Amino acid sequence: MISWFIDIIREHKKYIFLILRQKTEFIQIFIEKEKFEKIEFRLESFIEVTWVMQYKEEIKLHSMELIAEHIEVLSYAQEELPISWKWEWYPSISERLDHRHLSLREPKIMLAFEMMSCFDLKVREFFHKRWFMEIHTPKIIWTSSEWWAELFEMEYFDKKAYLAQSPQIYKQMAIAAWFEKVLEVAPAFRADPSFTSRHVTEITMLDIEMWPISSYHEILELESEMLVYTIAAIKEEFGEKVRELYWLEIEVPTLPFPTMKFRECVEILEKEFSILIWEGEDMSSEWEKKLAEYAKKEYGHDFLYITEYPSSVRAFYTMSKDGESPYSTWFDLVYKWLEITSWAQREHRHDILRSKIIEKWMWVEWFRHYLEAFKHWIPPHGWFWFWFARLFKQMLWFETIKEMILMPRDPKRIFP
Amino acid sequence: MISWFIDIIREHKKYIFLILRQKTEFIQIFIEKEKFEKIEFRLESFIEVTWVMQYKEEIKLHSMELIAEHIEVLSYAQEELPISWKWEWYPSISERLDHRHLSLREPKIMLAFEMMSCFDLKVREFFHKRWFMEIHTPKIIWTSSEWWAELFEMEYFDKKAYLAQSPQIYKQMAIAAWFEKVLEVAPAFRADPSFTSRHVTEITMLDIEMWPISSYHEILELESEMLVYTIAAIKEEFGEKVRELYWLEIEVPTLPFPTMKFRECVEILEKEFSILIWEGEDMSSEWEKKLAEYAKKEYGHDFLYITEYPSSVRAFYTMSKDGESPYSTWFDLVYKWLEITSWAQREHRHDILRSKIIEKWMWVEWFRHYLEAFKHWIPPHGWFWFWFARLFKQMLWFETIKEMILMPRDPKRIFP
Repeated sequence: MISWFIDIIREHKKYIFLILRQKTEFIQIFIEKEKFEKIEFRLESFIEVTWVMQYKEEIKLHSMELIAEHIEVLSYAQEELPISWKWEWYPSISERLDHRHLSLREPKIMLAFEMMSCFDLKVREFFHKRWFMEIHTPKIIWTSSEWWAELFEMEYFDKKAYLAQSPQIYKQMAIAAWFEKVLEVAPAFRADPSFTSRHVTEITMLDIEMWPISSYHEILELESEMLVYTIAAIKEEFGEKVRELYWLEIEVPTLPFPTMKFRECVEILEKEFSILIWEGEDMSSEWEKKLAEYAKKEYGHDFLYITEYPSSVRAFYTMSKDGESPYSTWFDLVYKWLEITSWAQREHRHDILRSKIIEKWMWVEWFRHYLEAFKHWIPPHGWFWFWFARLFKQMLWFETIKEMILMPRDPKRIFP
Repeated sequence: MISWFIDIIREHKKYIFLILRQKTEFIQIFIEKEKFEKIEFRLESFIEVTWVMQYKEEIKLHSMELIAEHIEVLSYAQEELPISWKWEWYPSISERLDHRHLSLREPKIMLAFEMMSCFDLKVREFFHKRWFMEIHTPKIIWTSSEWWAELFEMEYFDKKAYLAQSPQIYKQMAIAAWFEKVLEVAPAFRADPSFTSRHVTEITMLDIEMWPISSYHEILELESEMLVYTIAAIKEEFGEKVRELYWLEIEVPTLPFPTMKFRECVEILEKEFSILIWEGEDMSSEWEKKLAEYAKKEYGHDFLYITEYPSSVRAFYTMSKDGESPYSTWFDLVYKWLEITSWAQREHRHDILRSKIIEKWMWVEWFRHYLEAFKHWIPPHGWFWFWFARLFKQMLWFETIKEMILMPRDPKRIFP
């Protein structure tokens, strides 16, 4: 006997059609009311069924039916359901998150989490094969790694401590220890009060750091290959199901991904979209959207790298393209209009790093342990980060990344 | 050309022997002083070398030598080294953790982290093959999942929040959503003021939850199989290196692992070690050590399951063995004298769970979201947790788990 949730109940005078659900699979069962009059059929109840396949005269359209022989209710859904994705009004994201154990049962959502679980394995296969070492950096930290971002503060016995916004400092220390290539998948915390569809306060992040690198193109190519490998694996395993539930085709990207320099982007924005960019202005998500549209039209590609950001708009540890260039080695990757990754070659020269910290008005003492790691050899190195949730939000066209997070957190939500 | 760290310098009148290190590999290079008089050889400097292999008359013992032809110093270690594992006095754990990017270079330590990275992949292979779904539960939570353990408190915008001590509540909610079998590898936080060799305030934990289960033996067998699979893979890849650096043989355990019930343990402790256990007393780590010794002697096995703990000493969500039994389904796994895992079948019946919460004097309102998940079906389910660091501490006989954590945290340490 196999167990099922009751997904749909279609009641007729003498019989009932039950649609039964098992994660993302469905079957239809024919029930003679008389035979099962003691059972109360309720949505989301959990039942075991045995059946026979039989020709039924009284049903016109379906000549062959699965006829229930024996039914056991393992568990009645005990109450009126607080939410259902089958309501006439699809429940709001907030209602669905309040009752997450129910909204996760929705086959489309369940499928997305199966796909992300697959990504979790495939991304490791990809990097372990290339001799990356998986590490686990601390989330309780004594200082900030990303000075501009907002920090969560916590009580740490008799001290103050913070939650890590990224493993950046620790990945670099691992590089200084000659771990060579490192990989981490872990939560990152941002006390960011924004309520956009792209932001949450806690996010699962893939983060890599590697050496040696001779230019940022190596990292760009590595990430492109990772995306081709993982998306192809996901398409192979879930492509058909995605077609069935989402009416969508997963597109495996082709190599190489289109790449445009920041200054080329400025030109395109001006020429194609009549948008004027001030010098020293950072790229807005609106502009990224426009550029992605342009790349889709010009190159027929869902991905777009925007490279060589001006140094003035990027973090102190980002290296200039060459000694004195005003262009940094910072890049963003945009996927179907949304930034899903950022990366750069790191500044690895102790004295330059130290003076950059001072230049940005930060307190050097805070960075003492970090700076020490640069005193006993560290080679040219680079990195990227990657948000799982944003990739899948875009792949499946969800409105907010919260849909792609098991129990998302925002400034107003720390439950369930 | 290949890059190396200078590991040992043996200076003679006219020549120098350099031992060069690459992670866990070593070579010896012969250097004619005259030829390289401009270079200052310093420990932990990073150099590139080309050599020829040649017969050297002036050296008695080694007839064939690698003779340096060209050397380039990529990076001088800029200062006197703050620590070195080659000092006459091996630096204390505290000194080594203060300068972690250097102590991680020690080949034994480097090797342990390579092994743990391999474990990270293998453990996922094992569970994904068995249709476990990898999930990412939130670390910022509104209430405690383990009422007896200490919680870190944090500011969450205008509210208070806490750091998760375990993903327990969320794994169970995933089960209620019919994720069926779930797996998570993530940090867990415990504001535990103890300074033992087994405790830290932040730890990477493997956590599983699954259904259906008919008895705790299924979980026990699953965990044993996981250990055989992962340890065998680690031995295959690193066995020889462990022999070389640790003078140790990795032993792949045999199935089944020895198992003793709590009440049998009480008898053995009394008979073999003259230790008297009071009723209602929990198992101490001292006793676990004795029992592990006994199991090693009796069964020749490094692992020992201690099963059927009395309900009185276990958490509210642990299920009794059967309806009214005073024995719970809680078990510990001891490896070479140290508890590395705990697990149990969960209480899945809403009303019993609710009354157990009240019985233990906890506030039901705190558990509102948790309890709701039990109202719309949840099947019998079970779990275990597993600390990577403890497994490897025992496998390689380190004194404290801090050695097996990249940047460990304890009540006095939140840096580097």
